[in-house]
Amino acid sequence: MQYHFASRIARAPASFLDELFRVSADPSIISFAGGLPSSALIDTQGIAGAAREVMETDPDIALQYTTTDGYRPLREFIAQRYRNRLGIPATADEIQIVNGSQQSLDLFAKIFLDSGDHVAMERPGYLGAIEAFSLYEPVIDTVPLEADGPALAAFEHLMNHTPVKFFYGIPNSQNPSGRTYSQENRRAISECLKGTSTVFYEDDAFGELFFDHKPRLPVKRYLPDQSVIAGSFSKIVAPGMRIGWLFAPKEILRSFNIAKQAADLHSNFLCQKILHRYLTTHDLDTHIRMVTTTYHRKCRLMCDLLDDLLPMLSHTTPEGGMFLLATLPPGLTSLEVFKEGVRSKVAVLPGTPFYVDGGGMDTVRLNFSSASDEQITEGMHRLARVIKSLSAS
Amino acid sequence: MQYHFASRIARAPASFLDELFRVSADPSIISFAGGLPSSALIDTQGIAGAAREVMETDPDIALQYTTTDGYRPLREFIAQRYRNRLGIPATADEIQIVNGSQQSLDLFAKIFLDSGDHVAMERPGYLGAIEAFSLYEPVIDTVPLEADGPALAAFEHLMNHTPVKFFYGIPNSQNPSGRTYSQENRRAISECLKGTSTVFYEDDAFGELFFDHKPRLPVKRYLPDQSVIAGSFSKIVAPGMRIGWLFAPKEILRSFNIAKQAADLHSNFLCQKILHRYLTTHDLDTHIRMVTTTYHRKCRLMCDLLDDLLPMLSHTTPEGGMFLLATLPPGLTSLEVFKEGVRSKVAVLPGTPFYVDGGGMDTVRLNFSSASDEQITEGMHRLARVIKSLSAS
Repeated sequence: MQYHFASRIARAPASFLDELFRVSADPSIISFAGGLPSSALIDTQGIAGAAREVMETDPDIALQYTTTDGYRPLREFIAQRYRNRLGIPATADEIQIVNGSQQSLDLFAKIFLDSGDHVAMERPGYLGAIEAFSLYEPVIDTVPLEADGPALAAFEHLMNHTPVKFFYGIPNSQNPSGRTYSQENRRAISECLKGTSTVFYEDDAFGELFFDHKPRLPVKRYLPDQSVIAGSFSKIVAPGMRIGWLFAPKEILRSFNIAKQAADLHSNFLCQKILHRYLTTHDLDTHIRMVTTTYHRKCRLMCDLLDDLLPMLSHTTPEGGMFLLATLPPGLTSLEVFKEGVRSKVAVLPGTPFYVDGGGMDTVRLNFSSASDEQITEGMHRLARVIKSLSAS
Repeated sequence: MQYHFASRIARAPASFLDELFRVSADPSIISFAGGLPSSALIDTQGIAGAAREVMETDPDIALQYTTTDGYRPLREFIAQRYRNRLGIPATADEIQIVNGSQQSLDLFAKIFLDSGDHVAMERPGYLGAIEAFSLYEPVIDTVPLEADGPALAAFEHLMNHTPVKFFYGIPNSQNPSGRTYSQENRRAISECLKGTSTVFYEDDAFGELFFDHKPRLPVKRYLPDQSVIAGSFSKIVAPGMRIGWLFAPKEILRSFNIAKQAADLHSNFLCQKILHRYLTTHDLDTHIRMVTTTYHRKCRLMCDLLDDLLPMLSHTTPEGGMFLLATLPPGLTSLEVFKEGVRSKVAVLPGTPFYVDGGGMDTVRLNFSSASDEQITEGMHRLARVIKSLSAS
């Protein structure tokens, strides 16, 4: 039988994420290729307690259908955290619960992008966003991501010459580069967008994970009505519950809510209730401080080992998050490092899926949150052997 | 700020589902408008036990990211149930986990429908499907749903003259009508589709809820490679976990999996684990028999009351499921019955959102699964007063 799929499927980029989960599942491979937060740092006891309490107090409500927008007390918790942490006057009416931040990408693209519309992002840009956006068949424009944010001249040129529906960026500890926009860059971008009809989509999966424990002001601070922030509990509590949110102007949420309802009615209510119970009976700030302190140590360990063992390789030095980007010595491609790495039981992620134009052949993304200190040490040694042997041949 | 949404949003039908959940939330209103399974019949103790066991045995796995296709033992349980219950040779590789059957609707439309493509469904047809499909801007063709299934002459004519990507139907206890396709109808439809490129999408939310406890053979029995079945645990275990599945040929699942990954990476893993634990430590068949026996009693009670109190109103007589469709006496519209009903503290669902062409003005859908016997009795009396008073005026 021949199936006649929609044209968007024929044009979909070959997927890499699922392949990664599979590589990560081989216990003999030390993987820096995935994007998992540390399993050891998930507060399983705390969450187990919250789950028990929800199932004791109102299980019939938690197991029944609910409204599309999400559990209101959880949305209030999120709004209050924006007010307290960042001084942004958020309300629960501006928060929509989704299945992790990936769903925000899909639904936001769905409500904004007609086929052929322009959407812009950083170069390199998050591959999950490229996958989500591509299915709506837009033109994806890119702006080079430099050390302190998107290159301003290129950003301005794009905005002046192209009707971009929205710019997608990760200002805090970007995936894959680990870079953080400077405050000046955020202001300059916002100035450039002011008066245009381009919305700024701030993906903020990592904003709570700065090694100095200090928040950065989001672009939304400068463009309240012209920007949205996508957040997630995946990196600060646990990913398996698939609970994230979109913080957006009410008029955008009205359309977003229509798309969410058509997509799956509502996010799983049991986990929304468990999460809310957990958040209101545990100290999230203390937990996050412990996570970021650990990630900071792991990041430093990885950077030090790279500098020691592979001085011919350059890499970014993240201020937070879970990733850094390394540029390979001349002559090496990321795909051969990936393949030879898997054979030598160390996995890295080639940079190419983060480029919509075939770039990134000489870069690999390294995740430092998931592996233990011992694995990082052993893994960097394995990687050094792989790269040295490939360089020699 | 003026937002430039995609054209699909401007064309989206006004949503009704969320409005319903809100009406259902007013405790003074007896609601037959929603589509909730009975909260009283959810095995909260059994699920609480399963949740406790998952959190005791492998919480770190259940709370971490996983693969897009879903928890393999759960997919194996589902495949085995198809083999045992219906004699269909299903394998886990043909099962993809989704967030309730609504997500199957969205993602299936996403992989098959380009703007302007034809998709067909029953008239009346499930409003959640209309909402999901509409966002991909197809032409929606309809075939009248008669007592024993889609009208065959109209079905044949459509298939002979229109390149329909897929036909969406609910052969078992259809929503909103409560009708079930006869076996002859299923065979005739399958014969008609054979050799065409039209896929049959069988939405089977209610196939386990026949009052005679006997399964009906799905269309997939006659069209194994040319049909899919969307299933859900929402009506047989609990909706709040948002776990359903698509049972489809592997080649379709390959495309579906790309769309699922771009949509939200994977369905919440914690609930997949809890559900699997529950299903393998409890007797699902005994539970379902208890649920259907109760629904049968409620359905009979509602039908008897309608016949007694409102003989001028005609209605379907379901063999299973959760809904029946009533046709109002001449001169009355469903919208005035809805509005006057809410004032009199009884809610029904107007038939119009189940029609893509403005039809159904004289029909209302009644849910009999959610209300208690006492509420059904009191609610039917309220409804009778509303309809009699509207008829008199």
